Amino acid sequence: MSKDHLAIFDTTLRDGEQSPGASMTREEKLRIARQLEKMRVDVIEAGFPAASNGDFESVRAVAEAIKDSTVAALSRAFDKDIARALEAIKPARSGRIHTFIATSPIHMEKKLRMAPEDVIVAARNAVRFARNGIDNVEFSCEDAGRSELDFLCRIIEAVIEEGAQVINIPDTVGYNVPEQFAERIRQLRERIPNSDKVTWSVHCHNDLGLAVANSLAAVVAGARQVECTINGLGERAGNAALEEIVMAVRTRQDVFGCDTRIDTTQIVSASKMVSGITGFPVQPNKAIVGANAFAHESGIHQDGVLKHRETYEIMRAEDVGWNTNKLVLGKHSGRTAFKARLKELGIEVDSEQVLNAAFTRFKELADKKHEIFDEDLHALMSDEVVTPEDEYFRLVSSAFRSETGEPPQAEVTLSAGGREHHARATGSGPVDAALKAIETVVASGSELLLYSVNAITTGTDAQGEVTVRLSKAGRIVNGQGADTDIIVASAKAYINALNKLQSGTEKLNPQL
Amino acid sequence: MSKDHLAIFDTTLRDGEQSPGASMTREEKLRIARQLEKMRVDVIEAGFPAASNGDFESVRAVAEAIKDSTVAALSRAFDKDIARALEAIKPARSGRIHTFIATSPIHMEKKLRMAPEDVIVAARNAVRFARNGIDNVEFSCEDAGRSELDFLCRIIEAVIEEGAQVINIPDTVGYNVPEQFAERIRQLRERIPNSDKVTWSVHCHNDLGLAVANSLAAVVAGARQVECTINGLGERAGNAALEEIVMAVRTRQDVFGCDTRIDTTQIVSASKMVSGITGFPVQPNKAIVGANAFAHESGIHQDGVLKHRETYEIMRAEDVGWNTNKLVLGKHSGRTAFKARLKELGIEVDSEQVLNAAFTRFKELADKKHEIFDEDLHALMSDEVVTPEDEYFRLVSSAFRSETGEPPQAEVTLSAGGREHHARATGSGPVDAALKAIETVVASGSELLLYSVNAITTGTDAQGEVTVRLSKAGRIVNGQGADTDIIVASAKAYINALNKLQSGTEKLNPQL
Repeated sequence: MSKDHLAIFDTTLRDGEQSPGASMTREEKLRIARQLEKMRVDVIEAGFPAASNGDFESVRAVAEAIKDSTVAALSRAFDKDIARALEAIKPARSGRIHTFIATSPIHMEKKLRMAPEDVIVAARNAVRFARNGIDNVEFSCEDAGRSELDFLCRIIEAVIEEGAQVINIPDTVGYNVPEQFAERIRQLRERIPNSDKVTWSVHCHNDLGLAVANSLAAVVAGARQVECTINGLGERAGNAALEEIVMAVRTRQDVFGCDTRIDTTQIVSASKMVSGITGFPVQPNKAIVGANAFAHESGIHQDGVLKHRETYEIMRAEDVGWNTNKLVLGKHSGRTAFKARLKELGIEVDSEQVLNAAFTRFKELADKKHEIFDEDLHALMSDEVVTPEDEYFRLVSSAFRSETGEPPQAEVTLSAGGREHHARATGSGPVDAALKAIETVVASGSELLLYSVNAITTGTDAQGEVTVRLSKAGRIVNGQGADTDIIVASAKAYINALNKLQSGTEKLNPQL
Repeated sequence: MSKDHLAIFDTTLRDGEQSPGASMTREEKLRIARQLEKMRVDVIEAGFPAASNGDFESVRAVAEAIKDSTVAALSRAFDKDIARALEAIKPARSGRIHTFIATSPIHMEKKLRMAPEDVIVAARNAVRFARNGIDNVEFSCEDAGRSELDFLCRIIEAVIEEGAQVINIPDTVGYNVPEQFAERIRQLRERIPNSDKVTWSVHCHNDLGLAVANSLAAVVAGARQVECTINGLGERAGNAALEEIVMAVRTRQDVFGCDTRIDTTQIVSASKMVSGITGFPVQPNKAIVGANAFAHESGIHQDGVLKHRETYEIMRAEDVGWNTNKLVLGKHSGRTAFKARLKELGIEVDSEQVLNAAFTRFKELADKKHEIFDEDLHALMSDEVVTPEDEYFRLVSSAFRSETGEPPQAEVTLSAGGREHHARATGSGPVDAALKAIETVVASGSELLLYSVNAITTGTDAQGEVTVRLSKAGRIVNGQGADTDIIVASAKAYINALNKLQSGTEKLNPQL
């Protein structure tokens, strides 16, 4: 790898997915992985195969589908975890094992309950075991940001001896500040023998709002891989945002002296896709991908202040993929055009059956909605990707009414495991009434943690995309539904979440 | 001011309010100002009085209401602007004039069309004029981040001679990186005579995601005022987020060696208030104030990983005001309890009439909703603060129905300037139908840019808070409505926005 290449390691599917409420289905992960590949991400961390069978299957599916990016799988520093990860990435054209162990005094003592010497032995064994299965091995020192420098030098020297090719320094709890973090990277690179034989990587968390700044400071200090996520998704306050890292490095070539190979015009699509799938909104004032980030572009009246473009602009909106929301399809578009556009959007439809169902829904939507945008198609397809066998509950029909002075009413017909049930309820609003009517049939006993709606496109005939987050017995699931009728969308989202509760299994979330 | 005091200058009401779609009414600004005072912000920038009469009135109202924070007013470097700003802050116990002029070659040439020497003369005259009216004068070099260092030294030396007490260095376009920006502050402090007699301030924009990091780097280099906003609100990608600055400095005392006087337990309330008023959501993975920022606190099942609290925690959720959403009122609460709780929430009710109307609405809500949380009261009151004289349009009653296979229908009765109108429409959904029915009466011809809904509290009987953003002839307004019925909330939000379009006037947005 050349010295002026900065590798982008995207962990949206692993660390991002660990955010409470951001869990994704295998199909959703595949869609995101395809978009990351299209964006030319160097490494896609697809998941943590030992966490659950579902995770294993997702990593394997990504490894099968992706050709142009390396597919990484995370594993703890045990043979069993690593073996499972190796198995999952076997189909990948280019695979990587990413193994980790905690190195800070507090983590070694309180979490691992291991002596430092034993941690070094475990790390050495893990890397050796991984290298027996694959060449491309990355090693991470969990909580490196709070680890002792001397100890870090010793453990990293050991894993380099065993053949680790990438050394990752995570600031697991987001405690570092840029200058100090950069100094740590500099010291490690100076003091460790053969440090020039490996790629140095960083993985920063955003608890103090410094994940991007810490990552960039590390790049100046010689790091040549940054671990990051779309929209800065991730545990707690998230990871470094991919879009900010990429655009800072590109815009300030004078400072960084290296660049990524990212196709930046794919950034906004990726951001919208991840936001849509997780139901996590992007705040309007989010850098690069927020709706206001390039507000000068959107025709805002500037009272003559804006006499010259560069006066207030350091990047161009089109460079990151804004203004590319094309009106593509309408009422008269045919099946072929529909299928072709899905393909351009990176949505692969495997079976004729799924395509037919999607096309029927597209026609229904086109009857209600004048212009069908890319976002509408994404929403339409995310409804479709719950394949019939996952759908224990299904909304057959519904009716709602509300009137000033009377309690809102809902009536639903629901199919549960193939049998139809009717129910009726009143509520504080029609959505409340609809969810109560559904609950009458399902009796899930779950708690509603979040209910949010976004108009997917503009205009009063926009589709509403509803996200609900349910909690039951410690598990949190996210459900989504889209429809031009917000109450129908709400009912669909609720049922989608209930189906996930019905089918899901527990999984393990590692911390980095 | 002691060397270890870091002053917090909040510009949510000025730079924050300039975000497209974030405009606030005078009452909303007062509510935020009271919360900022309660949080112990040092300086509240209340607005730009020369922008419009509305801005002037808002600044004046804040100057009258606030006792414990300095109230600053922005003005360009002309006598007329400054005189207007002086007039607006006259009632303040502690007032400040904040005057600015652009100093970068591109801004002087393309925007000001002035020679650098003339810019120095204008700055000197402005500060002299301001000092004739008030002692506390701050001077900003617009686009200082891209200005020539020698020129900055000359202009700043000149304004210090004229008596400026605070020198602010904005990174107007968010182009800087931390090390470089800090070096700029260091150089200015070293090279300018009497630089130790003034307070150095920074104002960073977040275009590359570095506003907080740049501000903190400047603090290490000697800046003792940071200009920031709640939730990082502001033009384009926004300003430095107050909550991140404050918590980074407090958490990393070892690095910064200074501290703010902020009562951090007020941070989450302030964040929710600003998000509610502007309709800008806070993304779940936002540092400090995002719903997931302290997810370890929320009982997420950690599979035994979390054996010790500090393992993954560098701050405590309660230190920033999480977990303080108290169940305060219910169906049986009386007027006195209601009024007392509003006072605790910083909501001042001036007239008996407004209180009575609010209490009636509270009782209506308590009939529909089991538990009334602080957020519900905020929502209830934000409906109330549109005083009757601003309400040209008003929703009298409504009825909606939708049923699978039939187009959703809405019927509304609307009062327009005191006269009632009935209208009926169908649409792609009941919200679409409702807005179309309203539009039948109003015929505003505006474009819907954004439609978003948030559940204000959890539970299926949550109130929905709807924000709509309308654009008409280059103006953008935000409307909000809250109700347990999402369609009614939507209709209210739309009408609120229409009232703003009806009453609003153009204003000028300065750039810093």
